Amino acid sequence: MASPLSDAPKSIGGCHYSAGMTYGLFGKFSAQPGRRDDLVTYLLQAAKLLERNSGCIHYIVSTSDEPEAVWVCEVWTNVAAHDASLEPEDIKALIQEARPLIVGMSDQTQLTVQGGKGLPG
Amino acid sequence: MASPLSDAPKSIGGCHYSAGMTYGLFGKFSAQPGRRDDLVTYLLQAAKLLERNSGCIHYIVSTSDEPEAVWVCEVWTNVAAHDASLEPEDIKALIQEARPLIVGMSDQTQLTVQGGKGLPG
Repeated sequence: MASPLSDAPKSIGGCHYSAGMTYGLFGKFSAQPGRRDDLVTYLLQAAKLLERNSGCIHYIVSTSDEPEAVWVCEVWTNVAAHDASLEPEDIKALIQEARPLIVGMSDQTQLTVQGGKGLPG
Repeated sequence: MASPLSDAPKSIGGCHYSAGMTYGLFGKFSAQPGRRDDLVTYLLQAAKLLERNSGCIHYIVSTSDEPEAVWVCEVWTNVAAHDASLEPEDIKALIQEARPLIVGMSDQTQLTVQGGKGLPG
């Protein structure tokens, strides 16, 4: 999804945001029965690898009452930063390792971040 | 939703997190036709009021391809912090003002945040 925002910093409702910081992604992984916590561990390893990636603002891993669900809430400077994040060899290796634990993905929502609390100033 | 986590700091998959920081909430507001951007403005005003609230870690407002949808992604230190955030008079007044713009809420997911990038250290 291309960002509709220009490159200039803007203000909506008094909250400043950087126009580059616009791409959000929320979605659910369903783990194999009994493997949810292992999948959480892999996704937190991914988050750790993403610490070096300045294009990744948030990569937050959560569970819910649904037994095998793992939710990931991501904020990226832009779509290209997200797409490029899948290319490094250590990330690819981690995806390969985690894949057998994953039954499917669903509830994926692509977002245009408008601002809020908890984003870099 | 009560947190299943103890008070001690823990590490999962090498990512440290504070056990208090566990409550996430993701959900969608549907705005009256043509009023989405006004609702975004109100929600960003709410985010601005929440800057003073140390129990609020994230309050991020996004839109998507769905014409009247506004998504809010929240992280709180715990459920009580979220619930208490609705009590201040200025927040109540903002909710009253915004309410006529809102057709409904849906897709609400309560989350137990396990860790990741973009959370306070």
